[in-house]
Amino acid sequence: MPETMWAIVKTKPEEGAELMQVPVPSPGPGEVLVRVQATSICGTDLHIWEWNHWAEQRIHLPQTMGHELAGRIEALGEGVEHLKPGMFVSAETHITCGHCYQCRTGRPEICQNLRILGVDTNGVFAEYAVVPAENIIINDERIPPDYASVQEPLGNAIDTVLAEDVAGKPVLITGLGPVGLLAVAVAKASGATHIFASEPNAYRRALAEEVGATRVIDPLKEDVVEVVLEGTEGNGVEVLLEMSGNNRALADGLKAVTPGGRASILALYNGDVTLDLNDLVVLRGIRVYGITGRKMFSTWYKAREFLSSGRLDLSKIVTHRFPFREFREAFELMKSGNSGKVVLLWDHGE
Amino acid sequence: MPETMWAIVKTKPEEGAELMQVPVPSPGPGEVLVRVQATSICGTDLHIWEWNHWAEQRIHLPQTMGHELAGRIEALGEGVEHLKPGMFVSAETHITCGHCYQCRTGRPEICQNLRILGVDTNGVFAEYAVVPAENIIINDERIPPDYASVQEPLGNAIDTVLAEDVAGKPVLITGLGPVGLLAVAVAKASGATHIFASEPNAYRRALAEEVGATRVIDPLKEDVVEVVLEGTEGNGVEVLLEMSGNNRALADGLKAVTPGGRASILALYNGDVTLDLNDLVVLRGIRVYGITGRKMFSTWYKAREFLSSGRLDLSKIVTHRFPFREFREAFELMKSGNSGKVVLLWDHGE
Amino acid sequence: MPETMWAIVKTKPEEGAELMQVPVPSPGPGEVLVRVQATSICGTDLHIWEWNHWAEQRIHLPQTMGHELAGRIEALGEGVEHLKPGMFVSAETHITCGHCYQCRTGRPEICQNLRILGVDTNGVFAEYAVVPAENIIINDERIPPDYASVQEPLGNAIDTVLAEDVAGKPVLITGLGPVGLLAVAVAKASGATHIFASEPNAYRRALAEEVGATRVIDPLKEDVVEVVLEGTEGNGVEVLLEMSGNNRALADGLKAVTPGGRASILALYNGDVTLDLNDLVVLRGIRVYGITGRKMFSTWYKAREFLSSGRLDLSKIVTHRFPFREFREAFELMKSGNSGKVVLLWDHGE
Amino acid sequence: MPETMWAIVKTKPEEGAELMQVPVPSPGPGEVLVRVQATSICGTDLHIWEWNHWAEQRIHLPQTMGHELAGRIEALGEGVEHLKPGMFVSAETHITCGHCYQCRTGRPEICQNLRILGVDTNGVFAEYAVVPAENIIINDERIPPDYASVQEPLGNAIDTVLAEDVAGKPVLITGLGPVGLLAVAVAKASGATHIFASEPNAYRRALAEEVGATRVIDPLKEDVVEVVLEGTEGNGVEVLLEMSGNNRALADGLKAVTPGGRASILALYNGDVTLDLNDLVVLRGIRVYGITGRKMFSTWYKAREFLSSGRLDLSKIVTHRFPFREFREAFELMKSGNSGKVVLLWDHGE
Repeated sequence: MPETMWAIVKTKPEEGAELMQVPVPSPGPGEVLVRVQATSICGTDLHIWEWNHWAEQRIHLPQTMGHELAGRIEALGEGVEHLKPGMFVSAETHITCGHCYQCRTGRPEICQNLRILGVDTNGVFAEYAVVPAENIIINDERIPPDYASVQEPLGNAIDTVLAEDVAGKPVLITGLGPVGLLAVAVAKASGATHIFASEPNAYRRALAEEVGATRVIDPLKEDVVEVVLEGTEGNGVEVLLEMSGNNRALADGLKAVTPGGRASILALYNGDVTLDLNDLVVLRGIRVYGITGRKMFSTWYKAREFLSSGRLDLSKIVTHRFPFREFREAFELMKSGNSGKVVLLWDHGE
Repeated sequence: MPETMWAIVKTKPEEGAELMQVPVPSPGPGEVLVRVQATSICGTDLHIWEWNHWAEQRIHLPQTMGHELAGRIEALGEGVEHLKPGMFVSAETHITCGHCYQCRTGRPEICQNLRILGVDTNGVFAEYAVVPAENIIINDERIPPDYASVQEPLGNAIDTVLAEDVAGKPVLITGLGPVGLLAVAVAKASGATHIFASEPNAYRRALAEEVGATRVIDPLKEDVVEVVLEGTEGNGVEVLLEMSGNNRALADGLKAVTPGGRASILALYNGDVTLDLNDLVVLRGIRVYGITGRKMFSTWYKAREFLSSGRLDLSKIVTHRFPFREFREAFELMKSGNSGKVVLLWDHGE
Repeated sequence: MPETMWAIVKTKPEEGAELMQVPVPSPGPGEVLVRVQATSICGTDLHIWEWNHWAEQRIHLPQTMGHELAGRIEALGEGVEHLKPGMFVSAETHITCGHCYQCRTGRPEICQNLRILGVDTNGVFAEYAVVPAENIIINDERIPPDYASVQEPLGNAIDTVLAEDVAGKPVLITGLGPVGLLAVAVAKASGATHIFASEPNAYRRALAEEVGATRVIDPLKEDVVEVVLEGTEGNGVEVLLEMSGNNRALADGLKAVTPGGRASILALYNGDVTLDLNDLVVLRGIRVYGITGRKMFSTWYKAREFLSSGRLDLSKIVTHRFPFREFREAFELMKSGNSGKVVLLWDHGE
Repeated sequence: MPETMWAIVKTKPEEGAELMQVPVPSPGPGEVLVRVQATSICGTDLHIWEWNHWAEQRIHLPQTMGHELAGRIEALGEGVEHLKPGMFVSAETHITCGHCYQCRTGRPEICQNLRILGVDTNGVFAEYAVVPAENIIINDERIPPDYASVQEPLGNAIDTVLAEDVAGKPVLITGLGPVGLLAVAVAKASGATHIFASEPNAYRRALAEEVGATRVIDPLKEDVVEVVLEGTEGNGVEVLLEMSGNNRALADGLKAVTPGGRASILALYNGDVTLDLNDLVVLRGIRVYGITGRKMFSTWYKAREFLSSGRLDLSKIVTHRFPFREFREAFELMKSGNSGKVVLLWDHGE
């Protein structure tokens, strides 16, 4: 094992990051060193890259970026007994305390002392990365590294879609960024019937159709509610999956849900949201679920099952792969909006 | 049976109503005539009495008021075979079409063509009332008429509280009008442990304590969130029951819910609601349920079970009973806010 | 409209039935006359055909057979206002009382006074059939009549599979008769990943593979539990769907379920069942659901959605179609076990 | 801290155990030493005491008995940081591996590598006991030690009763041993209305009435199904809680459940169980839940909430308290069946 490695490090409080040589980290007690094969870029990484207000408040520089990965275990820290070097793994990015009320009542994903890999710790956009052993997910060997890396955001889509059953039901997905596209794929694989999908970006609407949306909508040109009602005999959809972070999309989306239906919200909004709660939620008996991320770790098992069985196909969603040295192109592409998931490959000569 | 009867009729588009003699109605096919024993006054009746904007838009004059009742079946319309004269009954007030998507998928309470007894039809503040046979609930003979009449709003409280299990959990109830007070009683009877209850009106806070609230809060003097966190070791409550219709109460209430908890909203708001949805719902994984009213008719069976078994005690909540001729006093009392449920008694010399 | 019609009538207490001319029935109040296009044969029809013990106790002769149908409304009985002649329809076969505890608590499918079309009334293996208007399902015009007829047993499969979510989960289906095959299709369409399917009949195992089973098992030659554990890294399946009615299949099936998993039982058994309940259910925290049939009528909406969207493909499951005059061949084929669903076509020269 | 302590140790493969001086154990890494205040005796302890077939197969001698306890933390092993000496605690008795499929999918209570405190390790019937820090429950200081010790079996009752909501519903509890009595208390506190309770032992039936059963039944003299149907207008109960381990009680109990109702089984049976599954479960759409024990650790929070709020009163259920030196009398009493929960007190001169 070398002493130094390449890593994409955020060093300055401004847009961008640097590819630089840093020491290969050592796994402490209860930790694992992973030799990284593939990492995918999240919207959060883009916020850090762009150094927005949230990043400025949260990130301590310098810090290695990234949290979505696949690789092989290289070395084990003290006390780690159930894992072995060579295992093909990914990682849950929520690092939990284990002791708070949420951790102790089966809801560690909303731990009161939550830390996030690559946000509150050094990340995984590097040739090697240290991860807590508890966060390690053993991957199915049938899943290729680029798809294995995408399991983390795929888990967000899974929890958003499957907060309740969608089989045999029409759904509306508002917002078709990478996780919205994953939600289209999960909804289709899980038996959603008519999949309405709304998004202003034409590239992403086209991707959504390839992935399984049965009716895409440009909300700047068509009325989402009208399109949905027309396509559902006036009843509306049973399920709304809000992935846009747009107040109007949320309001229209809720209006398109049939009375007694369900809405899952994964998106975050710029500031407060204003809604006619009476008509949109209360009087029509809607259930609204805030979705924070993956359940630890049942969501991961679903992701793994979906991918290892071939039920869920990521080939249309992972649109671009870059060698890690071309990370600038990768980030610029992500900024353009004209991509699905973008993956960085960390070549070790394999 | 007499040809005429006393009824409280809304005749003019202004505050108030008149006690007048009107013909005793005849039950049509599929309908039932009920000899009324007790009726309780709902907030909706008060809106009609005061002739607010909603009433002006919705109510066609002249119309008999009221929808919460208990009485005995006097006569059966054509084709009604499973009921008998003399049966002690109440009535579900949602009159459904039976054919729409919601009616056909087990959700008639949110029927797309819903009509409401005493709102879209003549009501039950009268010596006799006609009700669709499908809406008739056969009461347990152990329940006195005044309590039987209150089963309808009690059903709203039941569905709000029991949208999910509350047993062994701390709850917060915001808003202690009559249905809020019923919610305190239902929460206590259903095993809620620490019951926080917030309300500006001192009379109602005092009632709530008698009914079972373990900590009442005046939101004008105390910080609801602080009080709840102090009383729950900093974790917050598992359940919010929003019965106030106040935007601030909703926002504070959601903030007082522990991550992963649940909020049921029965209240309606004056206009749009503004919320920090990110922090209050999405990032903390909260489930929000819009509650429209009673499930048809499983909620009624729960109400009946609670009352017939003595598990739920309404003696502190039904605070006032008036002979029907004193209906003006009853409405004035309701307007003052210094009451629990108010019942009108329709004496037939029994 | 003619005065007489062809019908398949059970006239004698022995195997078989007769094709004969009978009067076209008239729809009474609340009923509908359907011109029949397609009917499918159920296992229950076969029991009546073979005149087994159950049939002997239950069926009153003479009686027209059959209950699974698709056709067009020909005439409306008195008081039926929400339907129109010409509508393309099928029928729920559970005729409910509307007044019992189950009917009034949202569970009409287990009505205490349940009657079954074609079992307790004249059935639908005829050119015309009378059905209660409440039981009429308006079909999507995109669904062909043979598939529309199969929606009834498809609904049984849907409720068995979707008693809980299967998306992202491995399942085991024991018994691959027509409803078992439908369960394979529903499980696949609903996101089940690895679908193990056990059945002694080779024809049906082959069909199951075409429909979507990922691993078929001949329980006479292979150990079901071993095969499942090998294919699930030793964990077992999350879901058992028991469609065989075989005590051994049930016991092995439960053993193949992972601790904390779920079993749905649609099958009926010959006499009592003997189980090691401690190890199979209690100590491993298994949830066992008895499944009686379709939810009225939410299950029908799912069937319709699955078929109209093309998500669920019946082309491999509806294996045979016969003109109604060849009903004897159809029943003989059903008896052989070497078929999927078998449909009778009622030609009106269209 | 002394070097030796009193402990009740099973030393020989025969009925009984010995009170003897043994070394005070030291907490290893991740463990905690608890100074014991109160321990309660479980049916499992009685099996070990009596040295039945199960005990013979499972227990390695010599071993300190017991697993239900309350006490104060005396010392912390290495790496335990979130606990402090002096804390008032109890312990979950399921020691889990943390790595298996069940542990990783939120179901550690059915861990594939489960070990049980006092069964697979030295137990807590001693002045001091070592417990894994992960298993420590911090008690509410308002709960007295004898009740705190009973939280473990109370948790079993809670999970059995609250597998689904019982509020506003009639229930039947078959078997009124200590956990059955706890189930009566939990059902009552959680809003069950009419509580039928069946048990041959008169002492326990009398206790059940004091605890909250509304109708006790001697199954040797009365027909359980008849009594339940009479008391529920012929509908049956919504919920069966099977705590007897008797095949007949299970069959009758299931028969007494209304179609569409739920049964939770905590009991274990002597050998296989024989049931008419068609009529008892399948055709009536019953949900049957195997219950293995407490959810880790949400059940404990409910137990704590119930006790700290005073909603649940154990004063009638904890019937006997003995100084630990009188353990023989305590076990003999348990054997007689004429007791509720029996507690041993470990006096430290406080």
